[in-house]
Amino acid sequence: MAEKAFQDFYPDHMAHCYGCGRLNEYGHQIKSYWDGDESVCNFQPKPYHIAIPGYVYGGLLASLIDCHGTGTAAAAGYRAENRSMDSEPPLRYLTASLHVDYLKPTPLGLALEVRGKVKEVAGRKVVIDEWIVANGVITVRGSVVAVQIPDEMLKELLN
Amino acid sequence: MAEKAFQDFYPDHMAHCYGCGRLNEYGHQIKSYWDGDESVCNFQPKPYHIAIPGYVYGGLLASLIDCHGTGTAAAAGYRAENRSMDSEPPLRYLTASLHVDYLKPTPLGLALEVRGKVKEVAGRKVVIDEWIVANGVITVRGSVVAVQIPDEMLKELLN
Repeated sequence: MAEKAFQDFYPDHMAHCYGCGRLNEYGHQIKSYWDGDESVCNFQPKPYHIAIPGYVYGGLLASLIDCHGTGTAAAAGYRAENRSMDSEPPLRYLTASLHVDYLKPTPLGLALEVRGKVKEVAGRKVVIDEWIVANGVITVRGSVVAVQIPDEMLKELLN
Repeated sequence: MAEKAFQDFYPDHMAHCYGCGRLNEYGHQIKSYWDGDESVCNFQPKPYHIAIPGYVYGGLLASLIDCHGTGTAAAAGYRAENRSMDSEPPLRYLTASLHVDYLKPTPLGLALEVRGKVKEVAGRKVVIDEWIVANGVITVRGSVVAVQIPDEMLKELLN
């Protein structure tokens, strides 16, 4: 895919996240893209991302909701300002709140589709509604409240 | 510690979970214990469980809330029936719903204490309130709604 993922725009100091950092060799390195008004991330769990035999670990599903949510929040922040993700000033988000409803067990072995939709962009806060699809069936619904990293923390990171 | 953890009572077919299964060599293998009316789990994140430099990945914290919650739910289920965790019939729980509020960034490098308190035991459902403490400071609050695994799914697992 020639299109750059949201996470490919993160500068190096923000690219170590276990869930979505391209520089974390132990992490999930998820990649999120726009698909019209929704965002999408395809992810293949490893065999050891197991809950009970045959099903995906809920903590991994929560992690996908988390990082796809903050990625979508960042992309939505730039979109709301009508500018590209590599423009200045940078918009960096952290998760303030995460909610996940496990509607039914998610089968292990399939590629999963994580989808997101921006519910609200209000100042430094973005709310994203999300859902995970396995083989055409929605197994998980969740939401993320993401907030822009406080400027002071961002300064610390850059020093 | 001579005391067995909640997770040490899980039978082998339930001990593969990435978060708390003692048989998952790639997983977190968390251990939860009673501490009076509360439950406690001590966990040392790895250096690569990073969000932004210096802080713990939120998806890992969600995973700790998840598995410590289902472990506490199981222990609470047995306690409500006034019997030990190795007695029959077995009580097995799955996460129905997970909520996590990140009150402040959790510093990376410290041992974390995850604590839980049973809010409700109602039939097949148990609600657990939880919080994570780093160096004496509560950085995360969360809750888990755990439900007993449907008998049919349990039968499938055992076959």
